[in-house]
Amino acid sequence: MEEKAFQEYYPEQFSYCYGCGRLNEHGHQIKSYWDGDETICIFQPKPYHTSIPGYVYGGLIASLIDCHSTGSAAAAAYRAEGRAFDSEPPLRFLTASLHVDYLKPTPIDVPLEVRAMIKEVKGRKVTVQSTLSASGVICARGEVVAVQMPDYLVTPNT
Amino acid sequence: MEEKAFQEYYPEQFSYCYGCGRLNEHGHQIKSYWDGDETICIFQPKPYHTSIPGYVYGGLIASLIDCHSTGSAAAAAYRAEGRAFDSEPPLRFLTASLHVDYLKPTPIDVPLEVRAMIKEVKGRKVTVQSTLSASGVICARGEVVAVQMPDYLVTPNT
Repeated sequence: MEEKAFQEYYPEQFSYCYGCGRLNEHGHQIKSYWDGDETICIFQPKPYHTSIPGYVYGGLIASLIDCHSTGSAAAAAYRAEGRAFDSEPPLRFLTASLHVDYLKPTPIDVPLEVRAMIKEVKGRKVTVQSTLSASGVICARGEVVAVQMPDYLVTPNT
Repeated sequence: MEEKAFQEYYPEQFSYCYGCGRLNEHGHQIKSYWDGDETICIFQPKPYHTSIPGYVYGGLIASLIDCHSTGSAAAAAYRAEGRAFDSEPPLRFLTASLHVDYLKPTPIDVPLEVRAMIKEVKGRKVTVQSTLSASGVICARGEVVAVQMPDYLVTPNT
């Protein structure tokens, strides 16, 4: 596992995302890393991230899968170009579609592990598949189609 | 539109959901209503529910679609049985799968409208389709398959 998370390389204007922005003090501030050819994110839900007592809210699960997948898509795009994460111009991805299958109730009192693999990199589009596990048990599966952000959003002031 | 929201009928143990629980002081506390044969939920994002500056975080969009859809599934199930929302036993639904297509960036400074229609009620399974709009423009489409909660979760202490 590398020492610095993907999200720590994001330029400042992309660092306020509620899911993964390191500068959003209200947000989840998730952190994603390479782990071989897969990517990994560990997240400890807060007690109030509940659905029914004892279990994690499905919207949080969707959020973790979403942000970890777009971060992973960016990491994969840099890798595919043989570029460092902090090289210019920045590559950022938006979610085109998100699919989550909830396989079983997810306990709230243990760290959750989101593990993603890059299924396909095709032009500006990256497809990312993932699992969300608690104590080694897969509780949800995700698939995100991420698309490279259009230039007018990457550099909104130009 | 009816005066009382679906979520205001939920029994106390189902009222702590981060997305829709009226008793979760940290959560979104969304409110859903019938509007003819469709259901509707209006939600004003907070400034910190951002993705990139000016736009709504996709995880929040997924969360709104998720909770509004499971609430709509419950409402549809009561209607299908000709029962009032507060009649016993309670009918509650879990998300089996969630799919969101993000069609365009969603502005953060206006109220969002989630509008759902019941596509199918089949046994314990309800399929709900939805749109999320800002200022009358559809920014996302959702489909949720909701499944009636197993009895051991509805009455966990028995």
